[in-house]
Amino acid sequence: MSDRERKTPVAILGATGAVGQRLVQALESHPWFVFAEAVASERSAGKRYGEAAHWLLDSELPAAAAELAVLSPGAPLQSRLVLSALDTATAAELEPLYAERGHLVVSNASKFRMDPRVPLLVPEINPHAAERIREQPWAPQGGGLVTNPNCSVVGIVMALAPLQQTFGLAAVTCVTMQAVSGAGYPGVPSLDILGNVIPDIGGGGEEAKIASEPQKILEADFPLSVAVNRVPVVDGHTISMFVKLRRRASLDEIRRALDGFTGEPQRLKLPTAPERPLQVIDRADRPQPLRDVRRGNGMTVSVGNLRADPVYDARFTVLVHNTVRGAAGAALLNAELLAAKGLLAAPVEVVAEAR
Amino acid sequence: MSDRERKTPVAILGATGAVGQRLVQALESHPWFVFAEAVASERSAGKRYGEAAHWLLDSELPAAAAELAVLSPGAPLQSRLVLSALDTATAAELEPLYAERGHLVVSNASKFRMDPRVPLLVPEINPHAAERIREQPWAPQGGGLVTNPNCSVVGIVMALAPLQQTFGLAAVTCVTMQAVSGAGYPGVPSLDILGNVIPDIGGGGEEAKIASEPQKILEADFPLSVAVNRVPVVDGHTISMFVKLRRRASLDEIRRALDGFTGEPQRLKLPTAPERPLQVIDRADRPQPLRDVRRGNGMTVSVGNLRADPVYDARFTVLVHNTVRGAAGAALLNAELLAAKGLLAAPVEVVAEAR
Amino acid sequence: MSDRERKTPVAILGATGAVGQRLVQALESHPWFVFAEAVASERSAGKRYGEAAHWLLDSELPAAAAELAVLSPGAPLQSRLVLSALDTATAAELEPLYAERGHLVVSNASKFRMDPRVPLLVPEINPHAAERIREQPWAPQGGGLVTNPNCSVVGIVMALAPLQQTFGLAAVTCVTMQAVSGAGYPGVPSLDILGNVIPDIGGGGEEAKIASEPQKILEADFPLSVAVNRVPVVDGHTISMFVKLRRRASLDEIRRALDGFTGEPQRLKLPTAPERPLQVIDRADRPQPLRDVRRGNGMTVSVGNLRADPVYDARFTVLVHNTVRGAAGAALLNAELLAAKGLLAAPVEVVAEAR
Amino acid sequence: MSDRERKTPVAILGATGAVGQRLVQALESHPWFVFAEAVASERSAGKRYGEAAHWLLDSELPAAAAELAVLSPGAPLQSRLVLSALDTATAAELEPLYAERGHLVVSNASKFRMDPRVPLLVPEINPHAAERIREQPWAPQGGGLVTNPNCSVVGIVMALAPLQQTFGLAAVTCVTMQAVSGAGYPGVPSLDILGNVIPDIGGGGEEAKIASEPQKILEADFPLSVAVNRVPVVDGHTISMFVKLRRRASLDEIRRALDGFTGEPQRLKLPTAPERPLQVIDRADRPQPLRDVRRGNGMTVSVGNLRADPVYDARFTVLVHNTVRGAAGAALLNAELLAAKGLLAAPVEVVAEAR
Repeated sequence: MSDRERKTPVAILGATGAVGQRLVQALESHPWFVFAEAVASERSAGKRYGEAAHWLLDSELPAAAAELAVLSPGAPLQSRLVLSALDTATAAELEPLYAERGHLVVSNASKFRMDPRVPLLVPEINPHAAERIREQPWAPQGGGLVTNPNCSVVGIVMALAPLQQTFGLAAVTCVTMQAVSGAGYPGVPSLDILGNVIPDIGGGGEEAKIASEPQKILEADFPLSVAVNRVPVVDGHTISMFVKLRRRASLDEIRRALDGFTGEPQRLKLPTAPERPLQVIDRADRPQPLRDVRRGNGMTVSVGNLRADPVYDARFTVLVHNTVRGAAGAALLNAELLAAKGLLAAPVEVVAEAR
Repeated sequence: MSDRERKTPVAILGATGAVGQRLVQALESHPWFVFAEAVASERSAGKRYGEAAHWLLDSELPAAAAELAVLSPGAPLQSRLVLSALDTATAAELEPLYAERGHLVVSNASKFRMDPRVPLLVPEINPHAAERIREQPWAPQGGGLVTNPNCSVVGIVMALAPLQQTFGLAAVTCVTMQAVSGAGYPGVPSLDILGNVIPDIGGGGEEAKIASEPQKILEADFPLSVAVNRVPVVDGHTISMFVKLRRRASLDEIRRALDGFTGEPQRLKLPTAPERPLQVIDRADRPQPLRDVRRGNGMTVSVGNLRADPVYDARFTVLVHNTVRGAAGAALLNAELLAAKGLLAAPVEVVAEAR
Repeated sequence: MSDRERKTPVAILGATGAVGQRLVQALESHPWFVFAEAVASERSAGKRYGEAAHWLLDSELPAAAAELAVLSPGAPLQSRLVLSALDTATAAELEPLYAERGHLVVSNASKFRMDPRVPLLVPEINPHAAERIREQPWAPQGGGLVTNPNCSVVGIVMALAPLQQTFGLAAVTCVTMQAVSGAGYPGVPSLDILGNVIPDIGGGGEEAKIASEPQKILEADFPLSVAVNRVPVVDGHTISMFVKLRRRASLDEIRRALDGFTGEPQRLKLPTAPERPLQVIDRADRPQPLRDVRRGNGMTVSVGNLRADPVYDARFTVLVHNTVRGAAGAALLNAELLAAKGLLAAPVEVVAEAR
Repeated sequence: MSDRERKTPVAILGATGAVGQRLVQALESHPWFVFAEAVASERSAGKRYGEAAHWLLDSELPAAAAELAVLSPGAPLQSRLVLSALDTATAAELEPLYAERGHLVVSNASKFRMDPRVPLLVPEINPHAAERIREQPWAPQGGGLVTNPNCSVVGIVMALAPLQQTFGLAAVTCVTMQAVSGAGYPGVPSLDILGNVIPDIGGGGEEAKIASEPQKILEADFPLSVAVNRVPVVDGHTISMFVKLRRRASLDEIRRALDGFTGEPQRLKLPTAPERPLQVIDRADRPQPLRDVRRGNGMTVSVGNLRADPVYDARFTVLVHNTVRGAAGAALLNAELLAAKGLLAAPVEVVAEAR
């Protein structure tokens, strides 16, 4: 039995898109999982993955992946574990379908994030939420659905979690400067963004997500103001954040809370977990997407330029790799957490029956 | 007597820099003023202006300007009106020197902006402040000094002024995304900014200016939080703003207050005054530097994406042409205001005596 | 009768696209023509032009244009003069249709450029070619079709014409670095071009056009090697050119031939004609798109960095504004030439009959 | 004895610059060499390397390197092997000085490349040239000097070498589109290159290097025309190349010659040698800096878009990582070749005596 055969097979929904490609790349040398099935749009179905995907990354398309035949949406899948990089509309339809069929769907789509039945999971912050899949309507069939947050939200909550835990959050304001890879491919036309800033993403939809997801993840209630912008950066969302705390804290206390932050993935040594999920850079001009986005293989959220603020208590800058920690890596880490918690060891017969 | 001879001669301090060039460009076809004397660093002194200036603009260097001999710092000047595009350190030395010699110095430098004796002037907002030059220590010699605000501040106060006048300001938060032309030439190295965002300008100095100048201009007291960023844009500072008002107002009332804003320069029809100093664009994805920065020949501040905010009352995006309305055009408009108010008609003999 | 009514009405095919918008912009204050009819795809038909067009330019959409109702492809037109900014496939169908109906079609599309019946017109170079519309199959109905070259070709032939006329061309090599606006909208995805160079445009189609159109325009036979690249520039194609001449010439003779070049549009003082169709900039680091593309309102082709070459005789850099002189302005200048030559004064009844 | 102690110590001249940093990065986990001594300008001397270097790379500054004390130019060095990332002027002075003192100087500077006594070394192409250091004037002291080519030239000769070996070269034309990292730091001002192309590098100096170095490396005589351009790309020089061969060859033969190319570093399995020094990508739109520059850890030169040419025999696009294969990696590979050839095993006492 080869290495490839010993690993847990994984299906990817939306495998040819920008986030799907990041998943394919991350699975190439994954110690637990192997990319076994690719699902994409009808237009791609039937082609080899290597033909169907317009490969965007600066590493080469893994040879084994290139040879997979792309399956059509809704096609029966062998893999119990399904990673979803679908757009919202398609996720609305396919994710419950596969969960119903007994698959464990680990999704990056926004559709079900705020659904009270669905864990909105950041393993460093609320790993216990994963357990809730046992109570989902798809549990009797062995299926389930977990989601990871919006790409900016991952960065925001990673910085807020230690502050909420240590001091409590009274109010937060965030202004994002988001990379074009967040819009997928073809995404943002170059004529719209070269030498430009666009003060809107999704006609307000992005702001609504950012304003509501953090409270669910942090299980806390605080007002959050947010303005989003698109900037001519390829990878890496930069966020100017202002934070008012419930308990007065010095900049030094805030810094210590941020820098020491660690969680379940680090204790469990999950394969995709960075050594440091949150790293403080003690410089006014950092973090920067060009120089810090690859920290921890794109899984470390960077915080820098921490300073006092006259209205809030502190302000600082956060950087998150939007297609890794903010999307593909987030989903993969969620899948690893489920595996480590024994939630993947499900009745295979159920899957068979579901067809 | 030629047209050129009938106009008021103007000297430019720091004439070869990025802002100096914008002044030279703006003066080319100015109906009242003519660019008569160029002062630059010792390195440029003695050269023709056309040789000394590394011309950065996409219009051609005016032919008459190219032939001017560059004077050294502190050289005696014939023109009573002196426009200063100096850096802070040189301004600290030269601006009082020329004011002392009886020149009216209209400065873009930050050095004396917060000096209580010096008007920090935005003609649409506080034109009356210009009168204070009569009480300056240099008044007996016929000299004076007025300044315009920081490039981001011009955009910020233009949007805040009608809100302060109509509703009162309770608290403001601003996050800037600033163009590279704001750093002058050579300024920001391309290796630092291509495909990047830098969350700092001047090691905090820029934030300090933005946090304090608006209150002086608006003659109001309110807390202002600010975070600055540099983005890969050539011209145009984009600013995400959050505003809490003293008096409750609907979005529609706010919109009307912003859109109707006009001031003294429009009433006086000053040559550099745009028809609309502030223009509301009713679109979520505007303003954008690429598409809106040239409105009103770079003198119109644009506001768009106005929406309600859960913590503040409203948030919106502001765009200001940083080297025109935020620098050269601001200084020029100040000079025009002084001229229109009769403050330029000074005893020429004083100037002569000063040498 | 208003000014608008006294001018010649003009229809634009493909009015909502990137080149169509440049035409709309150029017609706003045109002394002879007025934008009277807009034709666009079925998706836009029935809407107001202001709604249908995603306006890309940094000037405001002209108010009168915004109110025009967009007509569907093939709709009957009142205007005899029809400017076409269609893509190739649609041009193949619609341009002969309108010519057949008695319209004079002045096209920017590539479809019929190499058709021996169709003039490929650059008014400074081969104005006489316009006469050939009298012999076109659509002449009996009063119709006709003229085209302008590919956007890079306009720059290339403008520099080659004086060299061909004075010394003869033996061989030419061109490498283009083309702006993204050349691909229209949405065109090039930002993920493909931010911080990148793409060594291909249209899978070789662009190179084929550039290798064949110049010889037709210059009525000369010489080998032309060409390689094309897309670069992250908004407007302005930069071209590195190497030229071998039939008659030996010094760099100085070459410079003089280039700089003195002028043609029929300048003699006729056509409204869109720049004072200088070709301008030599005597600097090694020029022309540059950022600084030179607006010369002559985008109608001047710039040449610079002229130097000797060991294999060829000389090499230099050419810059052409691809959507102005290379597209919309080229078509408009062609229309003006036809008007000045009296070729627009056609039997209006023919048009009426065609419906 | 630690790993660090067992490795050959290496000194870096110009260690704080852009290329010096790439050397520091490459040496971090080098199996043979260890970064032991840093030499930089007087301004940096005495500081810790971590303070003195404005770290530009997206990996973290190696901790051991950060602690090294920076030495001043001309300071005595313990390491026999000296890697030089100096600018030309400083190289002119320091490189012979250290060679004279018995050091083996492996230089990236241009100063001595065309010196007939000095090997201009590309290990895949002319490894035998390394032997010539035995005949250098510094040989009696145990010293020597080898250089690597200009950053664009490495890409050019890697593609030309198999063609010269198989078919002979008759004429070559190259147009480069060079990344900003090639100009070092601070290098190209962002105001000069954002959204721009500059058709010149070093006032013609770059073209002179590219036109002469390939013939020395390839030991062949052929005319080479070259035009250089700077484009807004961070890393990776893209080159449009046209090649005329002495012996007629089909595109397929040319492709095979290119793709099969390999050399001494691959046979010797030198640590920095990529598996494939030259890789053909069979796509019209490749190579691209954004997607291909990291192939072979930046040591693989990519060739793509191979096609027939009417004047030459073939044209294609070459991509080289300018600060890795074109600079730091080139020098390091040269040092490894010297080590593998036993040319590093020199009398240490000579070094001692030299002080």
